[in-house]
Amino acid sequence: MEKRRTVILAEGSFADFGESKTAYGILRFIPETVVAVIDSEHAGKDSSEVSGLGHGIPIVADLASALQHKPQRLVVGIATAGGWFPSELRKIIVEALENGLEVVSGLHIMFSEDDEFRAAAARGGGRIVDLRKEPENLPVGTLQAQKTDAFVVLTVGTDCNTGKMTTSIAVVREAEKRGIKARFAPTGQTGIAIAGSGICIDHVLSDFTAGAAEKLVLEQASASGVQLIVVEGQGALAQPVYSGVTLSLMHGSLPDAMILCHRAGQDLVEIVDTPMPPLTDHIRLYEEAMRLVKPAEIKAVALSTRSLDEAEAEKAIQQAKKETGLPVTDPIRFGAGVILDALCADGLKKVPLYKGFQS
Amino acid sequence: MEKRRTVILAEGSFADFGESKTAYGILRFIPETVVAVIDSEHAGKDSSEVSGLGHGIPIVADLASALQHKPQRLVVGIATAGGWFPSELRKIIVEALENGLEVVSGLHIMFSEDDEFRAAAARGGGRIVDLRKEPENLPVGTLQAQKTDAFVVLTVGTDCNTGKMTTSIAVVREAEKRGIKARFAPTGQTGIAIAGSGICIDHVLSDFTAGAAEKLVLEQASASGVQLIVVEGQGALAQPVYSGVTLSLMHGSLPDAMILCHRAGQDLVEIVDTPMPPLTDHIRLYEEAMRLVKPAEIKAVALSTRSLDEAEAEKAIQQAKKETGLPVTDPIRFGAGVILDALCADGLKKVPLYKGFQS
Repeated sequence: MEKRRTVILAEGSFADFGESKTAYGILRFIPETVVAVIDSEHAGKDSSEVSGLGHGIPIVADLASALQHKPQRLVVGIATAGGWFPSELRKIIVEALENGLEVVSGLHIMFSEDDEFRAAAARGGGRIVDLRKEPENLPVGTLQAQKTDAFVVLTVGTDCNTGKMTTSIAVVREAEKRGIKARFAPTGQTGIAIAGSGICIDHVLSDFTAGAAEKLVLEQASASGVQLIVVEGQGALAQPVYSGVTLSLMHGSLPDAMILCHRAGQDLVEIVDTPMPPLTDHIRLYEEAMRLVKPAEIKAVALSTRSLDEAEAEKAIQQAKKETGLPVTDPIRFGAGVILDALCADGLKKVPLYKGFQS
Repeated sequence: MEKRRTVILAEGSFADFGESKTAYGILRFIPETVVAVIDSEHAGKDSSEVSGLGHGIPIVADLASALQHKPQRLVVGIATAGGWFPSELRKIIVEALENGLEVVSGLHIMFSEDDEFRAAAARGGGRIVDLRKEPENLPVGTLQAQKTDAFVVLTVGTDCNTGKMTTSIAVVREAEKRGIKARFAPTGQTGIAIAGSGICIDHVLSDFTAGAAEKLVLEQASASGVQLIVVEGQGALAQPVYSGVTLSLMHGSLPDAMILCHRAGQDLVEIVDTPMPPLTDHIRLYEEAMRLVKPAEIKAVALSTRSLDEAEAEKAIQQAKKETGLPVTDPIRFGAGVILDALCADGLKKVPLYKGFQS
């Protein structure tokens, strides 16, 4: 995991979980690295007062104040639609680069191709890291991920924003607690900002997306003795806007098991506003989509209950258990133990590739 | 459809159907535009002697000979793995551009970014068209294709190279014969070279692939009175290397019906060499993958029987009919009438989006 002193840029949006996904991810999983959050609307408050995360971390009004905390990198902690970057924030990026910071962006637009930013970096010794930049020489995916000895788990979802990244990290940390050698394979900007490496799978040419997923698994598996790799899922098969990314990730990473992530109470699919199908239909779809390649199953459901109180959360979990017949928990609220138990039930035994059968 | 006088570059590979996919597609559907094929291994022969297509079209040894037939464009009619371009062919491209031709390439490498080619084009007034170049400002796909009045059909397959493009064009031509206003929406280099427009769907960032498919359908639907749009499919859901592209295309183009294309007798999935699943399993998978977005069905099977004699072909068609319970034919060998009948059986009535249901 990343260890450098980080300032998070969340100007104008820190109170909004949806817009500050990367900020919240970093504050949840590596708060010890964060020295300040920039959002002039909440300057003077403690991070936890606004986000519920990062107790003791100050919110500051501007970069000048943040610099007093001696950061080494600035992470752009806001998501903008289609990668557009508000012009009023440009000067903060310029200042950070002039002050020698590493600026980490997960937006679709490439900071490293911006003349003003490049000039500022050259002046101040700063460095630009575009998390979404496509790696060079990606392979097409060809079932190579199956060669790893480690048990591979993929988090999948009923939609975008259902907790796939948080569930992935929570499962890895729970496994480490139990002495299992586990690795997190991030596929999105927040996961990469937290882990310090990975591939932004949605910014790869579609012919090479499965290959990128395969490469990620092989990289994580290359460390000796790795027993468990949890790959961060993206999108959802029932989310038509991003379903292709999801399927490429499934067929490239070749999971031995999947975890279905769902936001409790969500009744419409994001962006397209069609009805959210029942959990059992999502499970059926995911298992069907793996069946002719590698018949992996969904072993547990991770339910995000952040909008519910504890009693409601318990009720939602019981309801989902009854509906699906699977172990269910909210890994953030109640820990990932239940999910890891489900994954380990068969001794982390790898699932073979499709061998052909009569239907 | 494209009308300009075309020379096809198939040097060293014209006898190989797999390597000359684009050449064969053009010769099958717009032979009237082709003035010569370049392949020094078969120079002096008639195109039909080598390919079975393009009767009366000469095969010549080099560009100088081809120029005697006054071509307006040169189409690179060979597919190279990963987009690599043999250096011995570079001089032909340079010569063509120096002679003012339009050079059309569907390879992954971009001719328009090659300094030597650009210089040659500047010298001779030639023009470079990279079919795989990603269009700018693609939208993300958001179910907009559903707004068109036309009945949308998508060809899907049990693998790559199963005849999706040929089936698509054959169905459109059959529909036109019957007085149905039909359009072909190409998604690959050969289809685009034939139609004269389209988007190479596998050379789009994966986040925007569904959006590209949506844009294609909306463009074809914009002509007045269009009743039927046939979208050329890519890859296959059971072909793990390209399955994500396939699903993006499905969820972006939102077909009202699908046609399953299969190569008779194929027993292994290409590239990965896993067993080819039964047709019924492919059908189930395609329908499951549409079900939670728009429950479209597979209405017919297009069987490619090019490797069989006529009696064997008939037998294979009968066998596939029995297996699937669907109308089956080889649209190239026996015409696309059976398939069009199946599509029209319900009066080209559009299928509504997923409305939610209990499973």
